[in-house]
Amino acid sequence: MNKYRKIQEEAYAANMRLPELNLVIFTFGNVSVADRDLGVFAIKPSGVDYTKLQVEQMVIVDFDGNTVAGDLRPSSDTKTHAVLYKHWDNINSVVHTHSTYATAWAQSQRDIPIYGTTHADYTTCDIPCAPPMSDEMIKGNYEYETGFQIINCLKERGLSNSDVEMILVGNHAPFTWGKTADKAVHNSAVLEEIARMAYLTEQINPQVPKLKDALINKHYDRKHGEGSYYGQ
Amino acid sequence: MNKYRKIQEEAYAANMRLPELNLVIFTFGNVSVADRDLGVFAIKPSGVDYTKLQVEQMVIVDFDGNTVAGDLRPSSDTKTHAVLYKHWDNINSVVHTHSTYATAWAQSQRDIPIYGTTHADYTTCDIPCAPPMSDEMIKGNYEYETGFQIINCLKERGLSNSDVEMILVGNHAPFTWGKTADKAVHNSAVLEEIARMAYLTEQINPQVPKLKDALINKHYDRKHGEGSYYGQ
Amino acid sequence: MNKYRKIQEEAYAANMRLPELNLVIFTFGNVSVADRDLGVFAIKPSGVDYTKLQVEQMVIVDFDGNTVAGDLRPSSDTKTHAVLYKHWDNINSVVHTHSTYATAWAQSQRDIPIYGTTHADYTTCDIPCAPPMSDEMIKGNYEYETGFQIINCLKERGLSNSDVEMILVGNHAPFTWGKTADKAVHNSAVLEEIARMAYLTEQINPQVPKLKDALINKHYDRKHGEGSYYGQ
Amino acid sequence: MNKYRKIQEEAYAANMRLPELNLVIFTFGNVSVADRDLGVFAIKPSGVDYTKLQVEQMVIVDFDGNTVAGDLRPSSDTKTHAVLYKHWDNINSVVHTHSTYATAWAQSQRDIPIYGTTHADYTTCDIPCAPPMSDEMIKGNYEYETGFQIINCLKERGLSNSDVEMILVGNHAPFTWGKTADKAVHNSAVLEEIARMAYLTEQINPQVPKLKDALINKHYDRKHGEGSYYGQ
Repeated sequence: MNKYRKIQEEAYAANMRLPELNLVIFTFGNVSVADRDLGVFAIKPSGVDYTKLQVEQMVIVDFDGNTVAGDLRPSSDTKTHAVLYKHWDNINSVVHTHSTYATAWAQSQRDIPIYGTTHADYTTCDIPCAPPMSDEMIKGNYEYETGFQIINCLKERGLSNSDVEMILVGNHAPFTWGKTADKAVHNSAVLEEIARMAYLTEQINPQVPKLKDALINKHYDRKHGEGSYYGQ
Repeated sequence: MNKYRKIQEEAYAANMRLPELNLVIFTFGNVSVADRDLGVFAIKPSGVDYTKLQVEQMVIVDFDGNTVAGDLRPSSDTKTHAVLYKHWDNINSVVHTHSTYATAWAQSQRDIPIYGTTHADYTTCDIPCAPPMSDEMIKGNYEYETGFQIINCLKERGLSNSDVEMILVGNHAPFTWGKTADKAVHNSAVLEEIARMAYLTEQINPQVPKLKDALINKHYDRKHGEGSYYGQ
Repeated sequence: MNKYRKIQEEAYAANMRLPELNLVIFTFGNVSVADRDLGVFAIKPSGVDYTKLQVEQMVIVDFDGNTVAGDLRPSSDTKTHAVLYKHWDNINSVVHTHSTYATAWAQSQRDIPIYGTTHADYTTCDIPCAPPMSDEMIKGNYEYETGFQIINCLKERGLSNSDVEMILVGNHAPFTWGKTADKAVHNSAVLEEIARMAYLTEQINPQVPKLKDALINKHYDRKHGEGSYYGQ
Repeated sequence: MNKYRKIQEEAYAANMRLPELNLVIFTFGNVSVADRDLGVFAIKPSGVDYTKLQVEQMVIVDFDGNTVAGDLRPSSDTKTHAVLYKHWDNINSVVHTHSTYATAWAQSQRDIPIYGTTHADYTTCDIPCAPPMSDEMIKGNYEYETGFQIINCLKERGLSNSDVEMILVGNHAPFTWGKTADKAVHNSAVLEEIARMAYLTEQINPQVPKLKDALINKHYDRKHGEGSYYGQ
């Protein structure tokens, strides 16, 4: 049997979750799943409609962005995924969508401020919006540089990729990641909901203050801290 | 037969209504149902996805928040439910969601003003938004204090829990209750719709006045007053 | 066979369209259908959930609001329907909903300005918002007076009930009507869409002018004028 | 076999996609598909509900707007389609909808500014909003003039119909086109999403700048340029 079959199946299932969760229309998104032992990841082929997608079409790519197996061309965002896997060895899945509210924040070039406990259940900071890239980076190896734009944005803010598993790329759209494909897709859906709630919050109260530290820390810690008591 | 089976079944069915009514994504909510004779309530286990939830997983907890029966850990919000049952002996079900519009109002730290008869059909007052708790309460027994924050907010405003069966906890999200699980879940869906309409009303007319007393009283009384003539 | 069966069936089918078209949640709406020969109309019983509604439950009421046949209490809005049938002999169906965007405009106490051809396909005027009633009318025969509030609002503006088949009752919600149940329900769905588009239009361009007369008349006439060429 | 059957089937299928993609309610839209060899196009009959539409009801019309075959009256917008086919020989399908967000922009009489890469994946310019027509044009051959309004709007801006395959007609609604019915319908759904995102973007950041040239060109070129690498 094809040694890539497991990550192809996982990547296929995760990609199919995107339209189910109303995070994409047509081909506006892609999920990849990595196999760290084999040093490769499986990713959606470029421009293939979700209704016609098949497991064996998932393209196998190494962490430098070279196609290793597969008949189709991988997603045009493949190099961004590759850079993240290469530089962050603790993640096994990356998701990119153009989900409506998260993309609107990205287009607005604003971080999503932390306004409530729904947000604090996932991270203690604002959701970062990486600035648009320089013209040189854009004209150069664009998708490859997009990966570095994400990595550098976290670095400059002193955040690790486990402090925050989601980011907006300015003028573009969101990326999320996680230890599993399930978690990375979950993060994309949660980001969309946080983005929608933050938009509504500012409409309802333009002078709204951010969430205070005690609540941020409480909600994050009860889910992720040492004495966490959320879940089983 | 398990003497808790009845409330487990009711709690299970009520929890499953939340995703059906688009009030939760993933595990963002929980319903409990009390048995006053047994002095316990059944509540959703923590962090279990609605798609995998089973009747027998409903955890049985007493009104001090101690688990009485069940293999799983109860919802992280369990103590809030317990406090409400202990102090309000006229309610038999509590619902907590992070429904989008109600949560946006909670994050905005504003009461939902009474703007129309849809709202007045349920209560004659603005939907209260309890202020965020003090840092001491948050760092202490947080979920337990959340229950008191709700109880005290109504008390300070001179409201009983039957005057208004819904509240926003500032920066967090809504809680609703009722004499039955059906009514408590109904209240959560109605709150979400009232929250959405109030948001749109202010967008359409930022200087909109509140509903006048004659209309408030008429609509509330025709549904809840002595000479009520709504329903069968 | 029950001589009311035909209008009961039509009223039942029309009521069931409301949740299908996302115009109501729970019991937030009602449709009636008149039989002019018999001098009665069939209307939804009060407070009965759409999921449990049955044809034979439709209550038969005369144009003075007296129940003529049926075991259940009719909709609490029955007298409003009765007044409209009694004073407007050219309509055979009335619909009341609390659909989200139309209700938000009603709560805002503003007419819906005519901003586009979608609106002009239905009427040449702004959708009227009848002012909230006087306290005396509210405390008196409220639902009966609501009917007169609607009739008088059109009268004061020099409009007939065929010039505009939809209205907002200030602080309350929309009513629509038509020659058939199909048309009256259609009008409720169209009103909701016009309300949503007008809200968005003002958000996108707060200084937006209204549609100019030439376009208003063209679109209305091609659908309703003497030389109309829309439809079959 | 009917020589028009192929375009009738394509037009039928494309029309049925509109309600599936939530781009129309009731009869608020129409798609046509041209056969360049036969010099005709198939278009939806006027005012027929999508739930009752049948393949053989598609009306066959020539590029001057004369009905060539079919028992029903063609869409009231038929002449607009005819003008576009006659003057633009590189398109084979035209779509007209009243989709909510795109129509709100049209009613606002504003171009949709280019704010992100989702937009740049389709065109490098703002989505044009053709100004409302002069009163003479409206009172004259209205639908015919609508076609010229579209053609002239692009001409005045120095755009070809392949530079941008979508337009708003001021105060009215959107039109899109393409080499195939699939592409023209796809463009209508994308336009609606771009319109929604641009609306949200301005709400979130009223001072938002437009997308910069380097990003516009990069995203457009990777999908449409000489060295394009999107899709298979």
